[in-house]
Amino acid sequence: MTERSPLARPFPALPTIEGVTPRIARARYKEWDRCDLTYVALSEGTAVAGVFTRNVCSSTEVELGRESAAGGRARALIVNAGNSNAFTGYRGREAVDQIRTQVAAHLGCSIDEVFVSSTGVIGVPLPQDKARAGVDAALTAAPCTWEQAAETIGTTDTFAKGATTSAIVDGRTVRLAGIIKGSGMIAPDMATMLGYVFTDVAIEPALLQQMLDTCNRASFSCITVDGDTSTSDTVLVFATGKAGNAPLRTMDDPGADAFLSALDDICGQLAKLVVRDGEGARKFIEIAVSGAASDESARRVGLSIANSPLVKTAIAGEDANWGRVVMAVGKAGEPADRDRLAIRFGDIWVAKDGLAVESYDETPVADHLRGGEIRIGVDLGLGDGKATVWTCDLTHGYISINADYRS
Amino acid sequence: MTERSPLARPFPALPTIEGVTPRIARARYKEWDRCDLTYVALSEGTAVAGVFTRNVCSSTEVELGRESAAGGRARALIVNAGNSNAFTGYRGREAVDQIRTQVAAHLGCSIDEVFVSSTGVIGVPLPQDKARAGVDAALTAAPCTWEQAAETIGTTDTFAKGATTSAIVDGRTVRLAGIIKGSGMIAPDMATMLGYVFTDVAIEPALLQQMLDTCNRASFSCITVDGDTSTSDTVLVFATGKAGNAPLRTMDDPGADAFLSALDDICGQLAKLVVRDGEGARKFIEIAVSGAASDESARRVGLSIANSPLVKTAIAGEDANWGRVVMAVGKAGEPADRDRLAIRFGDIWVAKDGLAVESYDETPVADHLRGGEIRIGVDLGLGDGKATVWTCDLTHGYISINADYRS
Repeated sequence: MTERSPLARPFPALPTIEGVTPRIARARYKEWDRCDLTYVALSEGTAVAGVFTRNVCSSTEVELGRESAAGGRARALIVNAGNSNAFTGYRGREAVDQIRTQVAAHLGCSIDEVFVSSTGVIGVPLPQDKARAGVDAALTAAPCTWEQAAETIGTTDTFAKGATTSAIVDGRTVRLAGIIKGSGMIAPDMATMLGYVFTDVAIEPALLQQMLDTCNRASFSCITVDGDTSTSDTVLVFATGKAGNAPLRTMDDPGADAFLSALDDICGQLAKLVVRDGEGARKFIEIAVSGAASDESARRVGLSIANSPLVKTAIAGEDANWGRVVMAVGKAGEPADRDRLAIRFGDIWVAKDGLAVESYDETPVADHLRGGEIRIGVDLGLGDGKATVWTCDLTHGYISINADYRS
Repeated sequence: MTERSPLARPFPALPTIEGVTPRIARARYKEWDRCDLTYVALSEGTAVAGVFTRNVCSSTEVELGRESAAGGRARALIVNAGNSNAFTGYRGREAVDQIRTQVAAHLGCSIDEVFVSSTGVIGVPLPQDKARAGVDAALTAAPCTWEQAAETIGTTDTFAKGATTSAIVDGRTVRLAGIIKGSGMIAPDMATMLGYVFTDVAIEPALLQQMLDTCNRASFSCITVDGDTSTSDTVLVFATGKAGNAPLRTMDDPGADAFLSALDDICGQLAKLVVRDGEGARKFIEIAVSGAASDESARRVGLSIANSPLVKTAIAGEDANWGRVVMAVGKAGEPADRDRLAIRFGDIWVAKDGLAVESYDETPVADHLRGGEIRIGVDLGLGDGKATVWTCDLTHGYISINADYRS
């Protein structure tokens, strides 16, 4: 890992999730001295739901994952780090099939219950010999910690990312533990990342998918680092049912709302951790848009601001350049009225009704912009739509990482 | 001006256009020792056409320019540099009205025949006293050269930009001279820039507008520096009719196609000059997309590649990272098939049919990427749609310029 992001958070204490056992191994996909293959065994009857990149050039892993998630059941997850296996044609497909066959034979399950993700360089087929040996080692390895698994799925990440929460469902405490990787090529629908949530709740796959779709809209689809969308983005939620609650089948079941809230919480935590590891990031930026024609319109305006290189460099330069925010609102193509727009940095409104606020107090604004946690507020003055999106500043670090990286 | 772009072109010899007289003056909109107000007088009967930013938070100048261009007639152009007068409410409007009234009184024309553009900082009303004194000085100044006018409309530009061409229409030689400014906040629909073309052709305003719309689609709407769209973008074409040709009224008139071709030529020249002055640019990038479902689809795919920070940093790093090009094709949301995609750098195809070309010759690719003029080709293998777009690399220079700039 390179220099740790100044916005990093410590890895939290994650609970054991009954029915979930993570293991790691060295497949040596790259010439490095670290584990790069993660295997998570899931107990029989585990429900699964997934959301995947909308990049139309998606990887084999994404295509197969989308198909398998529709089946609703999972027994294993394999994550390869260092090689994304994307854009590798039939040879990439063969490598994934080999892994699924190998794991399914070990567990005595269907290959459709084995989920595979790969992350790293595009265009080089995943080497089948390394994958076979790595999977062999992982299948028989001792269980590892969540932090070790989070480190092993990482590539250019500068810190291991995990989150946890819990809920009371049907009188039982259900636990959620999540890990995620990603630091560049991050844009919504989905962000460029691999994220996994494990929970012991008992739930029908269709409801789990419905809940994940809902949570995704306000979390992974509301973050951006550079507006670039990976061909491999994947978020999977696995529910073992070991908590012993009466299985959740519809949103009307008691406890369904509590679990949805917990899933929403952990998705938001994980999404924000990815932004905190944005390539070259020195400042974490929250952009709250209100007064829009609709929530979706607010989200688009927010992402237009969050993806604007001129806004992101202004924040890097600690400059309260609200003119660039106006520009980014206007280029979103959403309903907006120049003369109703209001903009704040931190808690200080610097522009209102289409004009600079005369003699606003610049001291708290400058103080706020010197910090590492920046809040920008934009009120469009049109309707009730609102959304919050998260991004980071654009710095020399981003250029160094991405202009020096070799494929 | 800051350090001259390494991609700069020398200012060409522009012809005098009969009926067009440029003049410059010091309004001192900023504390600088340079001319910052340009006045171009146009003979009676001059036709005008315009295209303007699609940013919905556009400036007063853009709103009024759009209205006046619909009238089809022009007698004067005023360009203010150093203050964009955007997002300044009624006071900004008053400043523009004052300028239009002042110039119209001097020329004895309608205020709708006076076109005003302003470029620079957003959010500060154009100071009326400085504008009045500057316009007074310009109205009575000696005529200046095109190069002086091109320098005077510039702000963060590092070199003066001009272009010329000619055509034979109705047996007469018609001449076109153009100047343009812009180097950041550049994205299509329109690019962030102010561009002006002057010609002596006789043409009806409606046809001139139709031609400009056509030419704009393949020029100003096909360039991008950072994907950010200014609130002030404007391109105007003024035709004095002094060439003496029978006025062009429809595309069927003899010579109309020749003039369209010349206008297309000069618009393309001017658009590419803006990219050559892209903030921090070290490499000029031409992206040719073919095999798309339609020309418009090809343009969108091209702009998705051209706006990708990961592609732009890869080129800055002289890295033939075609995986990032695949990613950018896929995120465009246009029809594409991963397994039909072909990508070349320079003249060497590095990926075909969804796979890396085995053992392609890396030497000419590396040589090409070390140069300043980069060509990327993408064939989608789907249809006949094609488009070419232009951008520049993303470098530390862009970050330095935009994180250090103060509004």
